Amino acid sequence: MAAPLAISLGDPAGVGPELIAATWAAREELGLQPFVVAGGAQVLRAAAANRGIELPVAEVTHPQEAVTVFATALPVLAHVGDAKFAPGRPSPEGAALALRSLETATSLALSRAASGVVTAPVSKSELAAIGFTWPGQTEFLAHACGVEEEDAVMMLAGPSLKTVPLTVHVAISEVSSLITKELILRRCRVIARSMARDFGLASPRLAIAGLNPHAGEKGRMGVEERDVIAPAIAALVAEGIDATGPHPADTLFAPHKRGTYDVAVAMYHDQALVPLKTLDFDNGVNMTLGLPIVRTSPDHGTAFDIAGQGLARPDSLVAAIRLAAEAAANRATNP
Amino acid sequence: MAAPLAISLGDPAGVGPELIAATWAAREELGLQPFVVAGGAQVLRAAAANRGIELPVAEVTHPQEAVTVFATALPVLAHVGDAKFAPGRPSPEGAALALRSLETATSLALSRAASGVVTAPVSKSELAAIGFTWPGQTEFLAHACGVEEEDAVMMLAGPSLKTVPLTVHVAISEVSSLITKELILRRCRVIARSMARDFGLASPRLAIAGLNPHAGEKGRMGVEERDVIAPAIAALVAEGIDATGPHPADTLFAPHKRGTYDVAVAMYHDQALVPLKTLDFDNGVNMTLGLPIVRTSPDHGTAFDIAGQGLARPDSLVAAIRLAAEAAANRATNP
Repeated sequence: MAAPLAISLGDPAGVGPELIAATWAAREELGLQPFVVAGGAQVLRAAAANRGIELPVAEVTHPQEAVTVFATALPVLAHVGDAKFAPGRPSPEGAALALRSLETATSLALSRAASGVVTAPVSKSELAAIGFTWPGQTEFLAHACGVEEEDAVMMLAGPSLKTVPLTVHVAISEVSSLITKELILRRCRVIARSMARDFGLASPRLAIAGLNPHAGEKGRMGVEERDVIAPAIAALVAEGIDATGPHPADTLFAPHKRGTYDVAVAMYHDQALVPLKTLDFDNGVNMTLGLPIVRTSPDHGTAFDIAGQGLARPDSLVAAIRLAAEAAANRATNP
Repeated sequence: MAAPLAISLGDPAGVGPELIAATWAAREELGLQPFVVAGGAQVLRAAAANRGIELPVAEVTHPQEAVTVFATALPVLAHVGDAKFAPGRPSPEGAALALRSLETATSLALSRAASGVVTAPVSKSELAAIGFTWPGQTEFLAHACGVEEEDAVMMLAGPSLKTVPLTVHVAISEVSSLITKELILRRCRVIARSMARDFGLASPRLAIAGLNPHAGEKGRMGVEERDVIAPAIAALVAEGIDATGPHPADTLFAPHKRGTYDVAVAMYHDQALVPLKTLDFDNGVNMTLGLPIVRTSPDHGTAFDIAGQGLARPDSLVAAIRLAAEAAANRATNP
């Protein structure tokens, strides 16, 4: 029987626990595959009760137990530990539990006891305060998996669009200097390999956006397409990767274009995030490509300000679980 | 009886004439207000026949005749002249007709014989070759209307979004240096006044985007929001304009946000065009704010490569006519 997905709890003071509870409660109507939560049984029970969800919890010792238990109770790995339920009030104790949960879920996936990891949101500042030295969960995962950070590539996936921004949290004025042929080649190789493995695509189609309006219009509005992006695409094609572009970004996400590629490679944060959130605001998922394990996460933060109020929507967590299950199934078929 | 809209023919070798014919033919099902075409009766007849459209043409001498004629024939102003029908093969003769048509339609709107102008697409290079010195139709219109080019503001409008890019055809690396407090103030004043007049809004809501990811996140990813955009918004608010922001661009166009403003002000071309074309690819309209006359145009070019093949869609021209009619009606009510 296939291994279940492992879900890390996220910060117990955030919306993670209540969304995990809400997702388990809707498992039948959503047709979800079994998952197991790494720790936090008490937090999960309290978050569920607080949200008005009836949540039987089954404390288990091995993920495989989750598969049979899942239909009637939320399986939780008991040895990971627990914390007090204090929505909206993060604490070092809570951050420590979030970290143990992440470490455990990752280890289970690496040992194949879990088919993949779905990480609920953590607070970077709370983790930093207890000595976590990585900028975020993705960098931690890359290190835990023995992958260079540069090769752990964030993809954003919605029902109608998958897209990778090549640069992320940098000012617009700095983007041009960060876009190099080497960066495009390195990331696109990871994207092509991962899309093939995780989505069962023989030759994934990468549509690579230009940086400037109209993709520079032959150098009239910027030279990055001519000098950097087009040569990188030519090199990718020479390697046998189905890469096209540079495409003008304004039309790349239009309905009739979205069917022509499997992933859109964007040059900067908003070039990827604007169309994704315009189209799929509640269903966006963050997926890390390039790891030896499947990893997805919901596309939102801890939302401490609304935790415990029953306002947070589980849509993105549900989508993250679905996407991880899809990728895990494809990896099992094409290892 | 209200004056009709005046439609300029556009380049007769482009898709303009066939789309005008197709739009007239669908006038009843679309419930379109009367319009009159400035010239090109022969071109229109031939373009219609070539597209398989039955098109009775009524050559008229004054726009007012169009109102009664419109139900049974496409009214065309005879004195503007004509050209040969040669789809896909632009010529100086055709460019000269396009220019006379634009000049005539503009004059009719300025004299109030027409309630507004809808301009079909022209070829900038063909116009330049016959001595047209303006970069495009918008600059010509600003000059003809006695408005400074800086105050003729391009707005893009779709069924679900109206947006103004503050910079347009410039490289991404140059955008930051072009965004000034003065530019934001000047353009937003025009936008606020025009949105009030053209859409009957007592106090139009302007949502102003940030330039950088997460609107700079308090200066961590760019300082333009803190140093330029936020001070400009404060000054607009002090003038009584309902301006908000700087908003993170990635969420600004999400479904639940689009209802919170009347127009989104973007910092660069793709920040406006990506969401517009993602949402409303076929129905985008270009509207010029800040003119004493109503002016819209379809959001596509001459498309010489497909002219005469019956492939071009009239959706954007239809939307441009509807939007011009809406603005003209609002101006008639609130002059």
